[in-house]
This record gives sequence, structure tokens and C-alpha cells, in this order.
Amino acid sequence: MNSSLKNDTYLRALLRQPTDRTPIWIMRQAGRYLPEYREVRGRAGSFMNLCTNPELACEVTMQPLRRFPLDAAILFSDILTIPDAMGLGLSFAEGEGPRFEKVVKSAADVEKLKRPDPASSLAYVMDAVALIRKTLNGDVPLIGFSGSPWTLATYMVEGGSSKVFAKTKNMIYADPGTAHLLLDKLADAIIDYLNAQIESGAQAVQIFDTWGGVLAPDMFREFSLRYLEKIVNGLHRSYDGDTIPVVLFCKGCNSHLEELADTGCDGLGVDWTITLAEARARVGDRVSLQGNLDPAIMLSNPAIIQEQVKAALASYGEGSGHVFNLGHGITPDVDPHHMTVLTESVREFSPAWHKEPA
Amino acid sequence: MNSSLKNDTYLRALLRQPTDRTPIWIMRQAGRYLPEYREVRGRAGSFMNLCTNPELACEVTMQPLRRFPLDAAILFSDILTIPDAMGLGLSFAEGEGPRFEKVVKSAADVEKLKRPDPASSLAYVMDAVALIRKTLNGDVPLIGFSGSPWTLATYMVEGGSSKVFAKTKNMIYADPGTAHLLLDKLADAIIDYLNAQIESGAQAVQIFDTWGGVLAPDMFREFSLRYLEKIVNGLHRSYDGDTIPVVLFCKGCNSHLEELADTGCDGLGVDWTITLAEARARVGDRVSLQGNLDPAIMLSNPAIIQEQVKAALASYGEGSGHVFNLGHGITPDVDPHHMTVLTESVREFSPAWHKEPA
Repeated sequence: MNSSLKNDTYLRALLRQPTDRTPIWIMRQAGRYLPEYREVRGRAGSFMNLCTNPELACEVTMQPLRRFPLDAAILFSDILTIPDAMGLGLSFAEGEGPRFEKVVKSAADVEKLKRPDPASSLAYVMDAVALIRKTLNGDVPLIGFSGSPWTLATYMVEGGSSKVFAKTKNMIYADPGTAHLLLDKLADAIIDYLNAQIESGAQAVQIFDTWGGVLAPDMFREFSLRYLEKIVNGLHRSYDGDTIPVVLFCKGCNSHLEELADTGCDGLGVDWTITLAEARARVGDRVSLQGNLDPAIMLSNPAIIQEQVKAALASYGEGSGHVFNLGHGITPDVDPHHMTVLTESVREFSPAWHKEPA
Repeated sequence: MNSSLKNDTYLRALLRQPTDRTPIWIMRQAGRYLPEYREVRGRAGSFMNLCTNPELACEVTMQPLRRFPLDAAILFSDILTIPDAMGLGLSFAEGEGPRFEKVVKSAADVEKLKRPDPASSLAYVMDAVALIRKTLNGDVPLIGFSGSPWTLATYMVEGGSSKVFAKTKNMIYADPGTAHLLLDKLADAIIDYLNAQIESGAQAVQIFDTWGGVLAPDMFREFSLRYLEKIVNGLHRSYDGDTIPVVLFCKGCNSHLEELADTGCDGLGVDWTITLAEARARVGDRVSLQGNLDPAIMLSNPAIIQEQVKAALASYGEGSGHVFNLGHGITPDVDPHHMTVLTESVREFSPAWHKEPA
């Protein structure tokens, strides 16, 4: 279906079209567990320098593809590029989490936020997307991504990472109007941003709602889900003749899988606290599923990784619609050899689940 | 049913017996949000000094009862008293989490762990229980507690707090025999410990599985749930003529509510990521439910707290079986006046849900 690609297994699986095996990519596959990543990261001087330099971002994006039989590349970037482009001033102190110079406290603060023009304040991301797409040369598809409105809002209101999200939750409970103003502005910015990534070369997009799971059910619906739906409806779903799949990944949101599937997205990422069998039974044939080994399994040993790959494939069962992944990002302390074992195991054991004609 | 108590609403609700209102207590109700707690904590010198001094532990246990219309007291202590009594050497560095001098890495390390005798190495806890029970003078019941085997094991294997639980998960995946040895030993120690608390005066017991939710479903069953069940089956369920209710609180374990109810416990604590209506529909009349306001609501304002109390009462619905609580511990930055609003709102609005004859 995507004539420009040598390997479109990932895209086909997301769209639940027949494949001869289960594709695999891994969240944070370009990351600190790779010595060559650490080398480039050291050279860049800071994490933001790495993100804002298209050549270096392209280089680290390509690194895992040279080592492992992966079925997709993902843009190397950070979810906080949008709040930064809105004028909040992002920085990463060495060994610490992200920090914003300014925080959002009031409707007036929200009004002051710029709507970023992807072609100017986020041009470095679009340049990276275009360069990676060119460098991939059609080997595998390129995934673009963004954080979700709710997840970005937590960083913008807290000023950085948080454990209990006191300020953001206080805003949604005590000042819901301001929260909606912020979330709606973010949703618009994310639509612009992801559409620009698609126009620059991204062949699928994923939205990370890392912190959706900290919300009570009704608050999740009102302050996260409805903005995810707005984004799904605002994205280019095909571009330049190719279908562009949209994947939502909400960590800790197992209780909302049906509602997430109803947004109209193509695929759902699931974390490891639900079996693929249960997730599949619940979403039916509405969406494909991406996941979901516990990242901690990557710290064990090759025999256990193989066994867990087999179990995850069996849990999903027969047919297309499964994109293999971990249930969250790979951690810095993983032995790269374990990634070899993981990716080769999926290549070896998955064809048995794709024998039936569609 | 408990003739020695002036207010047995909490115990009756846990056992799903008719009550004229919904009882309330709050996790960490004796804690840093209270200036009088901070004063005693400062005087004690260290957190462990406070836990190990029965007079001071009794004093801070009583503090919230003097301020708020609460229906239960809970022993002031820490879940890590058992690993400490097993010989691991617990300490709390100022402003940091718990640390153990020794960590558990191997079966040999597990073999070396002492089975604590509650009457000697944990005598300070039993003395506190007895003193609190006496001081309460029958006003409200006293809750005893312990961490779950899985939760205690994570601290013992990691050496303290953790984000990804790499070592403990590596143990359950790569060395399950050692993990089971450790968990079984912990279950035995917890049974001894809770039974001793009951013998010393605790009128209900709660087991906190704070980290059960980080496990994949099959791993939760094998490495947490089965040991919770062992404990439930090993506890005094009545003592000195009184029924002793057992409550399980597993944070992030909404997908396991039915299985938790099947352990034979009397009540389940639920966090705020599920509605009480859904939890009640799923567990039926097997167990009572405790919870579940988002602790962040306590940071908002009186009007919102009132509104959320009403919503939670309505979500549970009519009849007995609901113990009001937050979905996790109250945080240090809460204004004590908000606890007044919370507790008084439950007193004011809950009787309307208890009008029908049982």
C-alpha cells in the first residue's frame, strides 16, 4: 500500500492489513542504552542541543536501525518542544528533569502563549523529519510524535516534572475554564505540529498521553480524552497518496481503552498491566494494538526475553493488528544485546501467527 | 456488635452491616499537614524515633481525632518495620526516602533473614497499639496495618524506594524461586505481626500493597495476590469476641478488584482512578469499599471538596458498605481546614444514603 517503502509491515499492521509477521519498534529505541547514542549526546553538549540539531537528531534516530531488525524509525525529539515554542523557555539541567522558565497559572498566562508556527519556531523539528525521511531511503517508515494536551499541560502548569500534579489538578478542579483554554490551545498547536511533521515526511504519528492515568475517570474524559479526539479529527489522515495511521498511547489508562478506540485513531499503545488478549477482546477490530512487554523484562536474560516474546505474541493471537513494543520506554541500563534478542525473537516467532489468509 | 465501642460505624460499614451514615478515616491522617504533628516529629529527632517511641506514636495517632470527626484511628507506624526487624537496618535520611543497610539479592540472603518475634523486635509497635487502644477509651476503633509481601519485598531487594523496580522484577522473572522464598517468609512474618497487633488491641487491619500495580497481570497473581490470600487466611478473624475486619488496599490494581475480593477479605481500598459505582458493580456484595477521592482535591477549596464528597457518596449509592477515604494518603501541603470540610461534609451528606432499612 505504500509503494515508496521496502518494508511497510509496521504501517500495514497498524491498519490491520495482512502481514507475514509482527512488526516491532521500541519506545526510546534511540536512547541512552546505546553507547553510540551516549557518544553523540556527549558531543552535543546538552539534550536540547541534540534535539535542535537536525543532523545529530537524524544520526541518533538511525543508530538503532543499524543494529537491530526494527520495522520503524521514530523522530528523535522531546514532547516539550511545543511548550518551549509557545515561549515558556525549556531547559534540562544535567541529571535532572525538564524545567520551564515561566509557568502557566492563569487565563492571562494562557492568553500570552504564542501559537507556534511549525515552519519557524519548530523548523528544527521539521528539518530533522525531512532529513531522517531522506536518510531512511524508504527502508522503513518514519513515526512522528507529540505529547498530548493534558500531558503537556502538566509540565507547563507545574513548571517541570511532578509526582502528584497538585497545581494542574487544582486548575482542573478549581479553575476548569483556564484549563480548557490551555488544553484547547495545545490541541490546536499539536494539530499544526503533527500535520507539519506529516508534510515534512512522517508516515505515521503517535500521541503520548504519559500522564492521562493520574486522572479520575470523569476528569480523564473531560481534560484529556476530548482533546485527543479533537486532534485525531484534525490530522491529515492521508498525505501524498498514503494513509497516515494515528496511534494513541495513554499510560495507565487501561480502563479507558474502549473510549480511546472510539476517538477514531488507528492504533492504541498499551502498557504491560493488561494482557494483549484482554485489550484485543475489549477493542475488537476497531483499532490495532501496540505493546506491551514490561520494560523490566529487558533487564533479565535472553531466555526470559524469548519466553516473554512468545507469550505476548500468543496473547495477541492470530492475524494482523499487533505492533510489537514494550509497554513503556526502554531504560538506560539495558544491555544492547537484549535488544538484539528481543527484535530477532519477534522476527523468528511471529510468522506462525500470520499464516491464515486475511 | 462491638459493645466496647461508642462509635463502631467504621467496623459495621466494613462488614456491610446497616449504619446511619458513612464512616470516614483518611490515609496518613496523622501526618505532616498537621502543625502539631510537625512539632512532635521535630521533637522526636527522626522519623524512626517517632515510630519506635510508643508515647510519641500514640500522641500523633490521637492528634487528628482531636480536630476532626473521624470514625477510626490508625496506628502511627511505617510499613518497613518488618524488614527492619528481619535485620536489614532501616534508616530515613532527612528529606529522602527509606534506606536499608543490607539488601536481599539471593536465596542465601533470604535464608539469613530472621523471622521477627513481634513480642521482642517489634515490641515497640505492640506497645504503641496497646497504648493507643487504651487512650482511645472506646471512642473509635483502632486500625492496625502492614505492607504487603510484594511491597515490602521491593524495598528489601532495591534497598529503598524505586521507580522501575528493576532488581525486584529481575528477581521475579529470572529467579522466581528466590522471590517466592522471600515472599512466603514475609507473608508468615506479616501474619505474626498483624495477629500480634490484633492481640494488642487493633480492631481491624489493613494491608497496603502500594506497588502491586506495577506488575503485569499474571505476575501480580503469582507474586502478590497469592500471598495476600495466604495472609487473609492466616489472620485472627475474630478476637476476644469481636469480629476483626481485614482490608486490602492495592494501589493501581483496579483490574484485579474481583480477584482481590475473592481472597476472603472484608473490604477493599480503591484509588481514585475508578468510580465507586463501577467498583461496587464489579465486586457486588462480597466486600465493602474504602475510598476514593483524588488526594489532589484536598488542595482545591471548600466548595469543590463538598461537591466531590457528594459525588463520591452518590457514586457508591444507597446502603452500607462504604468507608469514606481518599484514594491515597493525604499530602503534606493540605490546609488542615480542608480536612474539617471533608470530614464534616461526609457527616452532613452521608445520612441521606442510609435511610432504607437493611
